[in-house]
Amino acid sequence: MNKVKVGIVGLGRLGIQHAENLAFRIPNCELKAICGLNKEQLAELSDKWNIPYTYTSYEEMLQNSELDAIFIASPSNFHCDQIQQALEAGYHVFSEKPLGLYLEEVEKIETIINRHQDKVFMLGFMRRYDDSYAYAKKQIEQGAIGEPVMVRCYGFDPTEGLESFLKFAQKNYSGGIFLDMAVHDFDLARWYLGAEAEQVWAIGGAYSVPAFTELNDAETGAALVKFSNGTMGLFAAGRNSRHGYHIETEIIGTKGSLRIGTVPEKNAVTIFNDAGALKECVSNFNERFAQAYLSEVEEFIHCIQTGSKPAITAKDGVQASLLGYACKESFETGELVHVKAYSSTK
Amino acid sequence: MNKVKVGIVGLGRLGIQHAENLAFRIPNCELKAICGLNKEQLAELSDKWNIPYTYTSYEEMLQNSELDAIFIASPSNFHCDQIQQALEAGYHVFSEKPLGLYLEEVEKIETIINRHQDKVFMLGFMRRYDDSYAYAKKQIEQGAIGEPVMVRCYGFDPTEGLESFLKFAQKNYSGGIFLDMAVHDFDLARWYLGAEAEQVWAIGGAYSVPAFTELNDAETGAALVKFSNGTMGLFAAGRNSRHGYHIETEIIGTKGSLRIGTVPEKNAVTIFNDAGALKECVSNFNERFAQAYLSEVEEFIHCIQTGSKPAITAKDGVQASLLGYACKESFETGELVHVKAYSSTK
Amino acid sequence: MNKVKVGIVGLGRLGIQHAENLAFRIPNCELKAICGLNKEQLAELSDKWNIPYTYTSYEEMLQNSELDAIFIASPSNFHCDQIQQALEAGYHVFSEKPLGLYLEEVEKIETIINRHQDKVFMLGFMRRYDDSYAYAKKQIEQGAIGEPVMVRCYGFDPTEGLESFLKFAQKNYSGGIFLDMAVHDFDLARWYLGAEAEQVWAIGGAYSVPAFTELNDAETGAALVKFSNGTMGLFAAGRNSRHGYHIETEIIGTKGSLRIGTVPEKNAVTIFNDAGALKECVSNFNERFAQAYLSEVEEFIHCIQTGSKPAITAKDGVQASLLGYACKESFETGELVHVKAYSSTK
Amino acid sequence: MNKVKVGIVGLGRLGIQHAENLAFRIPNCELKAICGLNKEQLAELSDKWNIPYTYTSYEEMLQNSELDAIFIASPSNFHCDQIQQALEAGYHVFSEKPLGLYLEEVEKIETIINRHQDKVFMLGFMRRYDDSYAYAKKQIEQGAIGEPVMVRCYGFDPTEGLESFLKFAQKNYSGGIFLDMAVHDFDLARWYLGAEAEQVWAIGGAYSVPAFTELNDAETGAALVKFSNGTMGLFAAGRNSRHGYHIETEIIGTKGSLRIGTVPEKNAVTIFNDAGALKECVSNFNERFAQAYLSEVEEFIHCIQTGSKPAITAKDGVQASLLGYACKESFETGELVHVKAYSSTK
Repeated sequence: MNKVKVGIVGLGRLGIQHAENLAFRIPNCELKAICGLNKEQLAELSDKWNIPYTYTSYEEMLQNSELDAIFIASPSNFHCDQIQQALEAGYHVFSEKPLGLYLEEVEKIETIINRHQDKVFMLGFMRRYDDSYAYAKKQIEQGAIGEPVMVRCYGFDPTEGLESFLKFAQKNYSGGIFLDMAVHDFDLARWYLGAEAEQVWAIGGAYSVPAFTELNDAETGAALVKFSNGTMGLFAAGRNSRHGYHIETEIIGTKGSLRIGTVPEKNAVTIFNDAGALKECVSNFNERFAQAYLSEVEEFIHCIQTGSKPAITAKDGVQASLLGYACKESFETGELVHVKAYSSTK
Repeated sequence: MNKVKVGIVGLGRLGIQHAENLAFRIPNCELKAICGLNKEQLAELSDKWNIPYTYTSYEEMLQNSELDAIFIASPSNFHCDQIQQALEAGYHVFSEKPLGLYLEEVEKIETIINRHQDKVFMLGFMRRYDDSYAYAKKQIEQGAIGEPVMVRCYGFDPTEGLESFLKFAQKNYSGGIFLDMAVHDFDLARWYLGAEAEQVWAIGGAYSVPAFTELNDAETGAALVKFSNGTMGLFAAGRNSRHGYHIETEIIGTKGSLRIGTVPEKNAVTIFNDAGALKECVSNFNERFAQAYLSEVEEFIHCIQTGSKPAITAKDGVQASLLGYACKESFETGELVHVKAYSSTK
Repeated sequence: MNKVKVGIVGLGRLGIQHAENLAFRIPNCELKAICGLNKEQLAELSDKWNIPYTYTSYEEMLQNSELDAIFIASPSNFHCDQIQQALEAGYHVFSEKPLGLYLEEVEKIETIINRHQDKVFMLGFMRRYDDSYAYAKKQIEQGAIGEPVMVRCYGFDPTEGLESFLKFAQKNYSGGIFLDMAVHDFDLARWYLGAEAEQVWAIGGAYSVPAFTELNDAETGAALVKFSNGTMGLFAAGRNSRHGYHIETEIIGTKGSLRIGTVPEKNAVTIFNDAGALKECVSNFNERFAQAYLSEVEEFIHCIQTGSKPAITAKDGVQASLLGYACKESFETGELVHVKAYSSTK
Repeated sequence: MNKVKVGIVGLGRLGIQHAENLAFRIPNCELKAICGLNKEQLAELSDKWNIPYTYTSYEEMLQNSELDAIFIASPSNFHCDQIQQALEAGYHVFSEKPLGLYLEEVEKIETIINRHQDKVFMLGFMRRYDDSYAYAKKQIEQGAIGEPVMVRCYGFDPTEGLESFLKFAQKNYSGGIFLDMAVHDFDLARWYLGAEAEQVWAIGGAYSVPAFTELNDAETGAALVKFSNGTMGLFAAGRNSRHGYHIETEIIGTKGSLRIGTVPEKNAVTIFNDAGALKECVSNFNERFAQAYLSEVEEFIHCIQTGSKPAITAKDGVQASLLGYACKESFETGELVHVKAYSSTK
């Protein structure tokens, strides 16, 4: 079986991690091309990792006939356009989340993706590929907790990333905390509950950094969601977690419950010192989800090689985004919001 | 200093625990009288614990001039009347939560309590006296987590109590899950956040036991609350916890967070067996809060002896109830509800 | 049933805790007399707790005919003499551990205790009455871990007590780390394994405080013990635990294992801060074993009232001490030591 | 830089894991040859993984001039011979632990390894490359716990492997529990304590499976070790762990302590069910040390490419084995044993 030849666009912190995985740690995959804005970085990576092609133009990369698949790790506002271009140029496509930043573009890109059924399209909801999250799903399917009743999702970014996020958000449209951060949790909730969101109330505030108010965004926010089958979702997201990157998910069922990541432990070491018994915590998403970032791409490559379809679809991206928009609207208006009904047969 | 002489009314599971504490484990306290409906039980306890007076009539007990204080552990619907009678008969009064089951009676009893400033009145929000909850409060006051931003409260009763609760609720008005159970959490949230609830959305359902729907109550419910200072409260309560009595509280602040009772551990034993590493959990409130039930009464007796006032006031009971009613209304109507403004100068 | 009237000798930190329990928290018990060296302390306690009799002479207290039982919480070197005097004066006796500091006195006092079968004698191996330790015993008896194979016991005193211990040990004979501290663990090991120690090798050193070498004692020590039924015991004890008072016990069986106190948690609070997720730890034995100190005395009083015998016997004190002496000998000589065979029918 | 071309011998459970890593997950590495006894397996792997060369003869593989390095994952009794052959044929060599099964061959192979200083030789003490173990080492070097005083090491194999081990050991010389299993722990203890073992007493027994007695081996064993700088080591090893593969290590220092793997958690999921709060555990070494098996080989490949030396040397293998032999002798004779002094300048 031939190796799948991949070109990647976007070489930020996560892009680099993906690129290194594609180059060295994914069976049956070859990283052939890298595309970014920084020529020095391109030259350095090309040399260090022995990558034959480098591009500063995405369009040029799409003309490289040696490639089979395009991997999109660029800023969120480019996702929709780059997905469309790559699909229309005949490539399999992996795109980082979110699908897009505006409702219209998200719905439009779904239609386009659905038109290219012969190509593998996959969205980077990597948490589903984390060993623990996947294990929880399997447990639920096997009836370990009966019927799911409620999901609680925490997504807290570390304080150390707060300043650089603010700088970014003051110049760019980030989507706000519910679309930018909680979208992963919205996907998980749908996945575990097997239902779509119907109604939401979202609140939040700027508790230590007033700048969030100017951005019309929340430093920390919370949302309560009623799902179609009467189940419930509690969501909290924030950008000021002092102990590290805290992603925690709980599924409460009629016969038990599951928690993933109660303490976001850095490793298996416990430190006993003057303060007590200490578990240090993971610093960021790269560290927490290193295994998931590998496994999702293994699945992508596997789908290309076997002609199968990834479990995550464009619809998943759209639905998670719809809930994100509803939260954003509720947060901004202070009102209960009905999540826009999704017409699934586009 | 003379011992405080106490008469107790209500000898159910919690009443018995209080009575035994009053009889044997509270310094400077003497249990002189017990009042209940079951004559056999009265005789047995009187004999076993050497209690001089037994009553089947509350009014008769109130005429015992040897007593200093009345301890009310009767069903919730008697609380307001019994508090009023005892205060007007000149006794110090300790009442189990809730203050009352209806908004009108709760507001009325507060006025009456406030009129008897020379008497100690204390409400059994025992969690504030639990060593861990009290420690968390002290940590927050010392700035350990900066400014509180969000509180998450879980209150899940064990499945093994589900059937007997249903039997009770089918014959009596329990108040519903938010007033009957979450009222403890509403008090904790106010206490930790230092703010009053303003707006609430509450949802829930009957997920494994349809009978809850007929009772217009939820088997498991959740509420999102916006507090006066912009802080947030997430509440979940349920009556179907398979692993035991799960009371968990989290306070997230601008500089850290605290969790109390992440796993409701039965004791300090970990069992390693075929299933893995197992922590058994507490079975019920008596077990979880044994120390708190003692400490709150030590405080009550101490206040009587020293002429000081308990930290928990009638207003605390009213405010927690107001939030409970608002949740109930939101759950029943499906709408966002404004918590009734409290006029504090009654 | 009449209350048991108790006189206590020894009003150090643990003595005071016992006295307060005897005075206020033990059903059917009355603290009538306190005996100590400090007249001011005696007067203060007598006043505060309303104790009718105070003594600076133990012999005088033994002449108080109102008393039923004597509680010994004096320094270890007085235990044997005071037990003998109290028994011979016709009292029930509770003595703090250890039974004694020298092999000869321990064996002699056992004979004396056995001669007074009509009196209740109980030794303060309080850990057996700790809820978690007792629960572990029950689990083992019910077969939860099959047959016990190995016990690991940790007994680490907090660093904050190190200096005051050194001051004491430089003037008094403490018995050394194995007799003074590990004796509790030796009792637990015998209890859980159901066997007697046969052979031991003990090592240790003065790792941060050289003064221990001058005392011929270890700052931290370890012992490996072979028990009569082929089972094993690993023991570690130390006086320099930075995170607090760390008592941990593990019983490994053929079908599972149990751990008590893996992290010596102060309470149910987890603190998340810049350092990570922190569990604070208990500071000292008073805090860790507050419940056990109560429960063992409840048992003592109960035995007196019902004419039953405590589960802990003089033999338990002797056997634990024999192992302590063997460890001490092994530590001092560097050799494997056979634990002296015990002739049980004295 | 050219990729390092590797041939592997031994395709058992661990060999397969190494082979797959070498083929797909190690940067700058190419698996070119596989050598095993089972022709079907060779054909299948060659096909599935696209491996150009397969061998049933180790000697033939050593004649393949395309190879740079030999990876030895065969049974322990072949290690010494295969290391020697590969080094003398001019290859870099990675060998699984232990270095050898007999004292003489271990000392001889060390001399041979030392003669081939131009070749990279590395021994598979993979635990040093586990993220948690490596982090603990770094913490200790940075002074987090002061000076190490005592190490406690647990190595318990899961019960589910017991039967197949017995079958193997009844036909082959396994080395016994201290050499076969605890050798990893002996290496860790030396590494963390920075000292060599001087004296040991080891005990153990056949607690549930009498067959171990016939093998002159222990089902579960324990050893107490005195190290050259006065520090201490407590070791326990067993083959009957019902909850899974339990590797736990603790380093107690003068200013704190570290524990690695207190509960051998399978993943980040906690299950709350009728039994309580459950953490499932890892099943075997492949699962527990998946990351370490990758990282150690990355280090091996990196050393070959950069001409540097691995941190683990032949001496480490010899010293760990010397302690293993001493334990074995102590276990068999019941006596205290002096660990043979090592002449380091061979």
